[in-house]
Amino acid sequence: MRTGIATVCLSGTLKEKMQACAIAGFDGIEIFEQDLVTSPLSPENVRTMAADLGLGLDLYQPFRDFDGVTPDLLKANLRRAEAKFKLMSRLGMDTILVCTNVATATIDDDGLRASQLSELAELAGDHGVKVAYEALAWGKYVNDYEHAYRLVEMVDHPNLGTCLDSFHILSRDWDTAPIEKIDAEKIFFVQVADAPKLSMDVLSWSRHYRVFPGEGQFELAKFMGHVVRAGYTGPVSLEVFNDVFRQSDVDRTAVDAMRSLIWLEEQSANWLAAGPEGAASSGAASRRRYPMELATLPKVSEPAGFNFAEVKADDTVQLEKLLGQLGFAFEGRHRTKDVQLWTMGQARVIINEQAASHAEPAIAALGFDVASPVIASARAQQLKAPVVARRVQADEEVFQGIAAPDSTEIFLCQGSPDGTAAWTHEFGEGLERTGQAQNAVIDHVNLAQPWQHFDEAVLFYTSALALEPQPFAEVPSPSGLVRSQVMQTSDAAVRLVLNLAPAQQAAVQGTQTVRKTYQEHIAFAVDDLVATARAAQDRGLEFLQIPANYYEDLDARFDLEPGFLATLKELNLLYDRDADGEFLHFYTATVGSVFFEMVERRGNYDGYGAPNAPVRHAVQYDSLHRT
Amino acid sequence: MRTGIATVCLSGTLKEKMQACAIAGFDGIEIFEQDLVTSPLSPENVRTMAADLGLGLDLYQPFRDFDGVTPDLLKANLRRAEAKFKLMSRLGMDTILVCTNVATATIDDDGLRASQLSELAELAGDHGVKVAYEALAWGKYVNDYEHAYRLVEMVDHPNLGTCLDSFHILSRDWDTAPIEKIDAEKIFFVQVADAPKLSMDVLSWSRHYRVFPGEGQFELAKFMGHVVRAGYTGPVSLEVFNDVFRQSDVDRTAVDAMRSLIWLEEQSANWLAAGPEGAASSGAASRRRYPMELATLPKVSEPAGFNFAEVKADDTVQLEKLLGQLGFAFEGRHRTKDVQLWTMGQARVIINEQAASHAEPAIAALGFDVASPVIASARAQQLKAPVVARRVQADEEVFQGIAAPDSTEIFLCQGSPDGTAAWTHEFGEGLERTGQAQNAVIDHVNLAQPWQHFDEAVLFYTSALALEPQPFAEVPSPSGLVRSQVMQTSDAAVRLVLNLAPAQQAAVQGTQTVRKTYQEHIAFAVDDLVATARAAQDRGLEFLQIPANYYEDLDARFDLEPGFLATLKELNLLYDRDADGEFLHFYTATVGSVFFEMVERRGNYDGYGAPNAPVRHAVQYDSLHRT
Repeated sequence: MRTGIATVCLSGTLKEKMQACAIAGFDGIEIFEQDLVTSPLSPENVRTMAADLGLGLDLYQPFRDFDGVTPDLLKANLRRAEAKFKLMSRLGMDTILVCTNVATATIDDDGLRASQLSELAELAGDHGVKVAYEALAWGKYVNDYEHAYRLVEMVDHPNLGTCLDSFHILSRDWDTAPIEKIDAEKIFFVQVADAPKLSMDVLSWSRHYRVFPGEGQFELAKFMGHVVRAGYTGPVSLEVFNDVFRQSDVDRTAVDAMRSLIWLEEQSANWLAAGPEGAASSGAASRRRYPMELATLPKVSEPAGFNFAEVKADDTVQLEKLLGQLGFAFEGRHRTKDVQLWTMGQARVIINEQAASHAEPAIAALGFDVASPVIASARAQQLKAPVVARRVQADEEVFQGIAAPDSTEIFLCQGSPDGTAAWTHEFGEGLERTGQAQNAVIDHVNLAQPWQHFDEAVLFYTSALALEPQPFAEVPSPSGLVRSQVMQTSDAAVRLVLNLAPAQQAAVQGTQTVRKTYQEHIAFAVDDLVATARAAQDRGLEFLQIPANYYEDLDARFDLEPGFLATLKELNLLYDRDADGEFLHFYTATVGSVFFEMVERRGNYDGYGAPNAPVRHAVQYDSLHRT
Repeated sequence: MRTGIATVCLSGTLKEKMQACAIAGFDGIEIFEQDLVTSPLSPENVRTMAADLGLGLDLYQPFRDFDGVTPDLLKANLRRAEAKFKLMSRLGMDTILVCTNVATATIDDDGLRASQLSELAELAGDHGVKVAYEALAWGKYVNDYEHAYRLVEMVDHPNLGTCLDSFHILSRDWDTAPIEKIDAEKIFFVQVADAPKLSMDVLSWSRHYRVFPGEGQFELAKFMGHVVRAGYTGPVSLEVFNDVFRQSDVDRTAVDAMRSLIWLEEQSANWLAAGPEGAASSGAASRRRYPMELATLPKVSEPAGFNFAEVKADDTVQLEKLLGQLGFAFEGRHRTKDVQLWTMGQARVIINEQAASHAEPAIAALGFDVASPVIASARAQQLKAPVVARRVQADEEVFQGIAAPDSTEIFLCQGSPDGTAAWTHEFGEGLERTGQAQNAVIDHVNLAQPWQHFDEAVLFYTSALALEPQPFAEVPSPSGLVRSQVMQTSDAAVRLVLNLAPAQQAAVQGTQTVRKTYQEHIAFAVDDLVATARAAQDRGLEFLQIPANYYEDLDARFDLEPGFLATLKELNLLYDRDADGEFLHFYTATVGSVFFEMVERRGNYDGYGAPNAPVRHAVQYDSLHRT
């Protein structure tokens, strides 16, 4: 699959954009006209630079408001088009995007449109240019890709074809199956964009909220499947107007974009291999070959669970104290590194003492149990995840590590049927346990995402770790709404919560270095939360103090048994209930940017106590502002 | 008019919110339930604190999903309601908001709803509580205020009335005239919110994009006029869910909110004074008195023009050089202050040398010609604009100054019929003019707004200076989209452009201090731009260098006369044309955060060369990144 991207997706100057696209590995780019018009580079410079960078200049775009106009306007439009065709010749480009008219069309007549497009195609032919005619979702008279293609068929000129754009097609819920009926020779270009499902006017939706494939909710693999089945072999190019990407670091965004195409390519191949839509998968279908070659990735299944979580600090005393009070056992220090292992049942927490001087405690790494760390790592690297190196000595387990968009280190670990981890033998003597060992697992981890990398993170965990994005939530906090995106495995053994904190909380310095001032946490699930809380209380744990008003409201809502309510209140436990079950949880005080949560899931409760999140935020805000 | 605000409008804890509301001067507040539930303050504490702060506790809200339910759910809902009624008694509150059911209603039957609401009213009566029943715009069965009121009439219980919320009514385009038919005794509460006209689902619109009155596009004066005519005398309270306000400094937002109500009160009085809707204004109508008393403000008409613009710097050499090259004449230094006066016709620029050490050049103040500076200042102060003090000596003109939300100082100056300014005599000897004095005026000023204060600024200039917001634009720049809001007088003698720069450009430190890294500018209009540019070129002015590609595109779009195009290109002039006329302009290089623009308007061209703005941004970005 030939990969492309429109320069309008990225921030910076044309030169910066081109360099970033080359580094990210794109085969070609679409030059968005405004980027050229505002550039000090001459067309000849751009052509040379593209050649030097190994970038094809695949599409010049957009040419607007051509057809369905009065004769006077047609003349002016042809003059304007010829100027662009001459410019393209200087750029060494041969394909231009012409969108259906949104502003100046006054005559709704396919015959007239076809005749005007025919004039344009003829002129284009004189300059060796191919015109890709695209239906905009909000085109005045032509807003449907099948209509645009009918016009192309009517004109029947070698220099006129169509451009298919997933946004314009899927935003209008047009059926994508008829794409297969389009003559592949007449598909001059294919643009892809994803988007969250929003109910707003389609123009605003398109101009601000498009995202890269895998970051939204469109059925892009199916769209691409039909395109491939049609026999198309040209570029598959991203055209994403997004307010955040326009502001973000150009190199980062280009890599995110490339990742989305690599992932889409695999998903499209999977969709095709599953056989014709609606029909059962058949050997014949999956073996069928199409002109477009779709590269595949190393396969990965979703992780079986968390292997460990790692917290890093310069001064680890407070972390050790908190874990001890929660009931974790100190299992010893690593034989060659300055790290400690603390466990509670299958929940393993590593305290890393190798932090920078004065670094406050923060979540540094997460380990996931996968079937094959090497395959998972190969996949992640093909998806352009940056590799994280860890020093290892002989006999020590080699961790396959990659960096997540928020710079958390993600380690791909060898899972085991019984949930144990082989590397724990690398740790020395710990302290003897006092009392009964509680069973526990890591229930979920909550990571704060910088606003520039939120969508990127969704794609990262989707593509590299096979986590599934769940419906999106928003939680009020005293300093603004917190956007919350749960990513999880189908069996919910791994639950990762990505939080986008309000600006006041997430102070960002520049575009590269991100200071995490927003609090993050690790939650552990136990069988008996009340017993765990009581034991922690006996060990002197500092609980997050829940206001008395909360318990009155809880009682009003749930009509709880008075003794149970008294226990919740006494131990600062929070409570939620839904049709599937109950949820009990409590939080510790925060050290640095980290706190811990203990939870108990009763029945089939699948949430996170969302109604309680505002209480947690308010109390944390209050304690932050009091100190 | 009794003023109120819901705590959900503001950031912070309940305590912080209450204090901010008291300081801003609200009569009362609505307690948003979540703010109480998450607060460490007991209900009794809240009651005492409100009394100490002189704040009425006017509404407890919201109570959701009560009516249209099964008998079992009704029982649970009544139990839940009684717990809240008891809580309200501890808070000393007597009115609760009950919204129409959105989630749990399963029976669409007015008889059943009335009977369930009747039970609620009876229970409320036992606790001395009044229930204000409000139709949510997305209520499952009841989403229209007239429907909600019909239910109130059916129940006919002294403890059941209705709450009117402008958002729920205007977002659905319900006719507001029938408000007058509602029995005033049955209107228990009125909530107001403004909003920009957006085409999106009404729930998202409501939860994220509400703004304070005067910051959106709803016809609120008319809504309030009908409420006043109905005979309502209770609180008029803001309920504004806004993503930005939730993140902003609580004290600032509370003042912005209060300003919006003061302004709305005046607008409502004006609407009523204009007489019955549709009918000609009649003496009888304007003299008619209503039970609600509406305070008025000192009247102000729109300013006649800019009086001056002031730039401030530690080192003013570069500013002086730029102005001199543009053709400004140095008119001398002030006799008592370290400021210089530069003029070009009626365009007056003050260079203030009293900036902090190492402060880069920045726009510091704007003077506006008004009919009466004292009246305008009194109005601004009643609208809670902070006063700016200026040292004056005997015989010097006393400037009435206020601070705009972005901290630009706004001076209200005595206009004169011939456009001169009396204070210029306070300046000493300048340099002798070389050559013919060009006529010029300040055409527009472009100010960067911090993202937290953009809506606040719109209301500030609307209410204090009588500028009218124009339709909103968005301009692409290499570091993101720039939101651009023109505020102008009806004759366009004053044009102020408020730009909301992307995050990367507008680095914000904390919530109070704002560093202006985004560029701002002052534009001067001349009669002959080509001559001005040529003279400036001769004086060695450093023009913003416009790329050659721009001129090719210009030619493609406008088919310009070759000689004219060559002149534009030679002088780095930009060009635009529309049905009303033509626009020529050029920019200087930037010093500090300031640059200048010279424009020539031909015919009735009324814009700002918007198609050229991306070029300007790109070239400025490029030069910033090259240095």
